Amino acid sequence: MLLDEMIKGMAKDAKNAARLLRGVERAKKDQALLLISQKLLARQDEIILENKKDLAKAKENGLSSAMLDRLTLDKKVLAGMSEGLKEVAALPDPVGEIEGIKKRPNGLLVGRARIPLGVIGFIFESRPNVTVDAAALCLKSGNAVILKGGSEAICSNLILADVLSESLRETGLPQKAIQVIPSIDRQAVKILISLDDYLDIIIPRGGEGLIRFVTENSNVPVLKHYKGVCHIYVDKFANIEMAMDICFNAKVQRPGVCNAMETMLVHEGVSDNFLPPMIQRFRDAGVEVRGCKRTKGIFPEITAAVEDDWPAEFLDLILAVKIVPNMETALDHIEKYSSQHTEAIVTNDYHRSQCFLSEVDSSAVLINASTRFNDGNQLGLGAEIGINTSKLHAFGPMGLKELTSTKFIVYGNGQVR
Amino acid sequence: MLLDEMIKGMAKDAKNAARLLRGVERAKKDQALLLISQKLLARQDEIILENKKDLAKAKENGLSSAMLDRLTLDKKVLAGMSEGLKEVAALPDPVGEIEGIKKRPNGLLVGRARIPLGVIGFIFESRPNVTVDAAALCLKSGNAVILKGGSEAICSNLILADVLSESLRETGLPQKAIQVIPSIDRQAVKILISLDDYLDIIIPRGGEGLIRFVTENSNVPVLKHYKGVCHIYVDKFANIEMAMDICFNAKVQRPGVCNAMETMLVHEGVSDNFLPPMIQRFRDAGVEVRGCKRTKGIFPEITAAVEDDWPAEFLDLILAVKIVPNMETALDHIEKYSSQHTEAIVTNDYHRSQCFLSEVDSSAVLINASTRFNDGNQLGLGAEIGINTSKLHAFGPMGLKELTSTKFIVYGNGQVR
Repeated sequence: MLLDEMIKGMAKDAKNAARLLRGVERAKKDQALLLISQKLLARQDEIILENKKDLAKAKENGLSSAMLDRLTLDKKVLAGMSEGLKEVAALPDPVGEIEGIKKRPNGLLVGRARIPLGVIGFIFESRPNVTVDAAALCLKSGNAVILKGGSEAICSNLILADVLSESLRETGLPQKAIQVIPSIDRQAVKILISLDDYLDIIIPRGGEGLIRFVTENSNVPVLKHYKGVCHIYVDKFANIEMAMDICFNAKVQRPGVCNAMETMLVHEGVSDNFLPPMIQRFRDAGVEVRGCKRTKGIFPEITAAVEDDWPAEFLDLILAVKIVPNMETALDHIEKYSSQHTEAIVTNDYHRSQCFLSEVDSSAVLINASTRFNDGNQLGLGAEIGINTSKLHAFGPMGLKELTSTKFIVYGNGQVR
Repeated sequence: MLLDEMIKGMAKDAKNAARLLRGVERAKKDQALLLISQKLLARQDEIILENKKDLAKAKENGLSSAMLDRLTLDKKVLAGMSEGLKEVAALPDPVGEIEGIKKRPNGLLVGRARIPLGVIGFIFESRPNVTVDAAALCLKSGNAVILKGGSEAICSNLILADVLSESLRETGLPQKAIQVIPSIDRQAVKILISLDDYLDIIIPRGGEGLIRFVTENSNVPVLKHYKGVCHIYVDKFANIEMAMDICFNAKVQRPGVCNAMETMLVHEGVSDNFLPPMIQRFRDAGVEVRGCKRTKGIFPEITAAVEDDWPAEFLDLILAVKIVPNMETALDHIEKYSSQHTEAIVTNDYHRSQCFLSEVDSSAVLINASTRFNDGNQLGLGAEIGINTSKLHAFGPMGLKELTSTKFIVYGNGQVR
């Protein structure tokens, strides 16, 4: 069958499944999730075998060890995935909740009922465990999903698709509610994102190239973030010890993720006390510091930051540092270079903390805490399918509720206009 | 200056204005709205003079009398616009409200603060009063807006733009917060919807052609509805009198709007009692009834409905009628032909009412009330800038709150991961 016919057929099936899924009670969805959780363990030898095929191919193609690591499904990873499913099953089901019923002057009762979005297209790279994580969140929120993983993970994704599909069937849920595109053709992405008659939303996760391609070519609305260029502003009135701990954590604890700090802005009133021990600590941890002119004036041995460093997402042990004369300059820098992902201030000044909170236009703004907290789990959403840095629909991490919408419901008794 | 340079310049100015607008207090915004309200009356002779230029041109070009009517700004229309502004000023300001602060196990306080979307591109046809209505809602919700009206209304829109701009200046608000594109070139739309570096959202209002063009070509997310193909299902257990009043109101009270009924589905168990007086009443009011085979079997004199009538938005005194053997058939018909705008059921059966409410996938679902209530004002939003029939961001009428988003705010005291 032609690729476009196949994908269009999957999309139609997904739309039909979505209609059935709308009315499914929580218990049934949780039952399916727990069954998937069991089957991941019960069928682990089979899954690991398929994964080994992907790994062998990847080695042949010379993928980096970091990429191989992300691709690997071993017993430990599978156990983690299995646990994750139990956690999703334990989360409350947002579908069907009714919000704020109000009575209108004519007696109509007007409220909003929470409903699934419908059909989600989820496009991602490498990590095959994401197949199961994403499918679980879509299922729990009552959405059908079509998954398109990276070509490197095709064998792993297909065996996982079989586990998912088998679990849906055995639970009596529509099998087409979770489908994996069984093709490594990159054209498949282009076809999928053109099907706005069937899909309600596209979520791409991966490198900036993939995400830009999807955003520029999709007819379906896209929720995504390109990158996380996160800033911490260490204010004149910061507690020096606290600032050091927060900045160190934000840069070093997991440098390869989108909520790690990439640029540290330091008020000139605190730079003499704060910067020497901080930079020492960074350098002891192997962080390459790239400083502005003033920073380099104090530490001649560090690299000089160039213009390209300010909007950069290093995803590595590299940090841009800038000394600013006042908070306004810090806010201007953030306005200009931030990716609107996550920014934090360290200060003990009430007015400045409030001002930072209201002025900074990012999906998460923190006072006296590490940027690493911008994550669905950490912020209390339970789990996340991704982070959205456009303000539409859901700004920031998207959990189960962010995979739903609301419709107006009206109880009348004969009202007309 | 070249058109694309000009519009890009406006978009940049709008983005700068949006940053300033984020922090503006409600009182200042209301002051500007009330000033616009006054100036519309104070400068009414000038406005009417410019509008006459548009009307003269429109007559020359042979526009229909309905179009001329929509284009006209007279003292009565201006008085209505002036009142509308006072109503928007009186609405609560959603910006800055903080929702649901919760404490995390590590002591972090996590909440969501309501923020403007940023820069809105508003593209519309004909009615110049929409210029002021839309600008008012954007301003009140803290958003900058770029308006592109129809070419027929260019003189009217430019004089209104002058009133808006003057009011912003006199209130001390950024003048570029409301801008009207001073061009009748259709290319302007194409340029505007390509500027995703500056615009956060596009709202098109007008004919289906315009909306499809915008949706298919925009790089910026679009909130819109193509059309309203609204259904009323008259159930077996309907109160006949109530069903007649509701259906008559939904079709006849204002047939040219998107929430008017276009198809009436009638349970066969009630058709003998309900249809004869109902169809008589419709025909007395000049409604052309197009019936399914069974309907035509009972009323041979009516037009036979063809397949094209079921998905049609007549926007006129035309109604498609279908007799259905059961509620499932009605739900299937709605699933297939509805534009997901508005559907209603008339019934006195508890289970069926609940079932209809949960099964129908439309932006507003009503029990025992006219579809004409799907409107921002009627549902209690205060005012609306349009209706969205995609489930993303805001499904249904969009008021002030729907022109905003939320960001996560986090109060810490040194937390790290």
